[in-house]
Amino acid sequence: MGAEMTTKPMPKGHIAMLDLSARELRDRMASGALNATDLVQACLDRIAALEPEIQAWAWLDGGYAMSQAQALDAARRAGRPTGPLHGLPVALKDVIDTAKVPTQNGTALDEGRVPERDAALVERLRAAGAIIIGKTVTAELAFLHPGKTRNPHDPARTPGGSSSGSAAAVAAGMVPLAVGTQTGGSVIRPASFCGTVGFKPSFGAIPRTGVLSQSPSLDTVGVFARNVEDAALLAEALYGHDAKDRATVLAPPPRLHSVAMTKPPVRPTLAFLRLPGWDRADADTHAAFAELVEALGEQCFETALPGIFDEAAEIRERINLAEMAKSYFAYEKKGRDALSEEMRAALDRGKAILARDYIAALDWSDVLYAGLDEIFERCDAILCPAALGPAPQGHASTGDAIFNGLWTLTGMPAVSVPILQSETGLPMGVQLVGRRGDDARLLRTARWLEGLLAEEETE
Amino acid sequence: MGAEMTTKPMPKGHIAMLDLSARELRDRMASGALNATDLVQACLDRIAALEPEIQAWAWLDGGYAMSQAQALDAARRAGRPTGPLHGLPVALKDVIDTAKVPTQNGTALDEGRVPERDAALVERLRAAGAIIIGKTVTAELAFLHPGKTRNPHDPARTPGGSSSGSAAAVAAGMVPLAVGTQTGGSVIRPASFCGTVGFKPSFGAIPRTGVLSQSPSLDTVGVFARNVEDAALLAEALYGHDAKDRATVLAPPPRLHSVAMTKPPVRPTLAFLRLPGWDRADADTHAAFAELVEALGEQCFETALPGIFDEAAEIRERINLAEMAKSYFAYEKKGRDALSEEMRAALDRGKAILARDYIAALDWSDVLYAGLDEIFERCDAILCPAALGPAPQGHASTGDAIFNGLWTLTGMPAVSVPILQSETGLPMGVQLVGRRGDDARLLRTARWLEGLLAEEETE
Repeated sequence: MGAEMTTKPMPKGHIAMLDLSARELRDRMASGALNATDLVQACLDRIAALEPEIQAWAWLDGGYAMSQAQALDAARRAGRPTGPLHGLPVALKDVIDTAKVPTQNGTALDEGRVPERDAALVERLRAAGAIIIGKTVTAELAFLHPGKTRNPHDPARTPGGSSSGSAAAVAAGMVPLAVGTQTGGSVIRPASFCGTVGFKPSFGAIPRTGVLSQSPSLDTVGVFARNVEDAALLAEALYGHDAKDRATVLAPPPRLHSVAMTKPPVRPTLAFLRLPGWDRADADTHAAFAELVEALGEQCFETALPGIFDEAAEIRERINLAEMAKSYFAYEKKGRDALSEEMRAALDRGKAILARDYIAALDWSDVLYAGLDEIFERCDAILCPAALGPAPQGHASTGDAIFNGLWTLTGMPAVSVPILQSETGLPMGVQLVGRRGDDARLLRTARWLEGLLAEEETE
Repeated sequence: MGAEMTTKPMPKGHIAMLDLSARELRDRMASGALNATDLVQACLDRIAALEPEIQAWAWLDGGYAMSQAQALDAARRAGRPTGPLHGLPVALKDVIDTAKVPTQNGTALDEGRVPERDAALVERLRAAGAIIIGKTVTAELAFLHPGKTRNPHDPARTPGGSSSGSAAAVAAGMVPLAVGTQTGGSVIRPASFCGTVGFKPSFGAIPRTGVLSQSPSLDTVGVFARNVEDAALLAEALYGHDAKDRATVLAPPPRLHSVAMTKPPVRPTLAFLRLPGWDRADADTHAAFAELVEALGEQCFETALPGIFDEAAEIRERINLAEMAKSYFAYEKKGRDALSEEMRAALDRGKAILARDYIAALDWSDVLYAGLDEIFERCDAILCPAALGPAPQGHASTGDAIFNGLWTLTGMPAVSVPILQSETGLPMGVQLVGRRGDDARLLRTARWLEGLLAEEETE
């Protein structure tokens, strides 16, 4: 177990720096051993070398990133206060508004669109000292039609979607941190396919103000990083109430990073779930999970879901399509022909959904959650695959989100940890799922799982 | 100005007691000058005398009320802590669940229905020391089809609805306090027709857990009393977060009663609005408001709403019908034939509404609110009629809620104060509307308006 980075030829020199975690980079900058300008230059060099093949970026301007880095370095030299992400470059899915920088939502209909204001989460990133290095490729309007990005582990394969560029950029070492969004499986699936950590917080944890709204009952901001600690570090800077996003709650945000870094008081117990769709999973997935469950031994028990959960995918889709038909009405009006066939078909389906069925679907979220919540009486996290298998061949589809939608529908925090690989060496994520609001504990459990092999080796 | 109680013959003896306000009754009980048992007996006597004509009650059992009163009197004598409503009888609209007491929602389909548990607000009433005296008549499923109740000021007229029995019971002096619900105009309209104070708080202020759910985006619990102070006293005991009702907010509830009892720091300014429907209002309403606005002088300015507000009624109705079609699906399935023609037609209309149109309608609430919110830069409250005129003749309809729906849709607190009357002496309410969440200030302004005549007389 343990995903390996691609061994494509890369420019020498900065590689050691880019192999460091975001937390290590931050600490080196804090100690004066590294400055943000050099780090950004290393990222830009890596991007220049790999971008022709990976195509992770929707918008990138070295000067924009460098000027932020210079200002942050100057601030540090002047002894001004620094934030928890001071000097760290972060990539943003191109559905997240950035002031005076193009945000084109993966559609020709938004070509040349330059928002006036930063999204709320971008304001928080800047306040934390992060560098907005550029905008990453998204599937069309954060739905299904793929963008240009390739999988860093095998360019003939999809990186997953819709947060394709964010996952690929982190996986390719172009940037240590990235932000994406998930309405079905748009964070966890690309993280699994690209071999990064992907973390989708509880619904409402991170404000969506200034983020493309596809399906307000489902849209969730998530993060990508190379390990769980870094994901916790980034997410913590984004959490918290925002009066303009009613899904957010007026309550103190959790201390994700410090909790994630603690050792669980007792060895965690995981509940292995064969989710609806398990039969369609690859042989690789069946084999890897058999091995993983065996390796976990007493730390893992298997449990099953009642038949009603077979309908969860359809229920989630009904909400998604109905809300999208309303949210994207203006796009359709502006230029239906410029939309993909997948999108047009989805909008047509969404338009035909009756209010009564839509409202009934919304109620299911809590009903299903109540059933899942009980499982946590006996475990720390639910364990399941992050995807059916490794990234599929080709670029016509971003893959199947069957193992992700239930957690988006129920608003439960989910994290994909890249500790498995296929027969052919492709990464496969292990997905852990926690109770709503128990994000910090989930990350602590994920970090324990991430370190499990190393721990076992030293025992 | 100033509504007068009906002068129907009433049983002697208790009348003086029942003319006291709830706050006065409470204070007399606290001082030992009165006990809850005598108060309940007075209420039961009044009910016995007037109920044949008024028909306000869906369920009433003297023994049930008396045993609560005896327990509360005993608790007081034993020196145990008392609540802010200790010993005060409260009537509940028969859509509010009461443990082991029938709650039949105004439909034959719920005949014999006896909930296991109290609604959250009933738990709060009991904790505050209130006596649940009985259940009052509601229009069928809190919608339009009238129940049996008559207007205490003229039994040939409707009491309004859907909280018909709650309004009539307070107006007839059967009980000092009552609880109702409003999805369109079901608190403010019957309060206006019956000549009581009706108060519909900000959306989400009082939990709906255990209350019949008709349209969760609109359903709002409200109260009836004979004056603003009493309404504040009762509402304050009901406010506050409930984890089971997501519309409620985790924040300290306001001190409605103490704030309402303070004198406004400066004389309030009211913004008089001719709402959509103004042209359809009775001549009585036009004349009374002309007089009122003139009497207010500099304390009042007139303002207008943009044309988009003409659609508010349709938008509110779309939300109501779509959600009702979902909420009442089980009733329809159980016995469509037992439902009124109005209800069947409304369900059919609701079932045909598309999800996209419904979701778009939900968005309008905030858009309209933003337009209204600006008005409060220049005033303390919006002033408008509570209904088109006095209670209409007949019992086939509960009257028109055209002046109420906008405030339900936008979730703004509204109060009807019975200070006007028609040419023929029937009560007509003046409606004051406040900013979302500014409920306490609204009640303070309403109490100022309530006392205005008296004040002017002594000036």
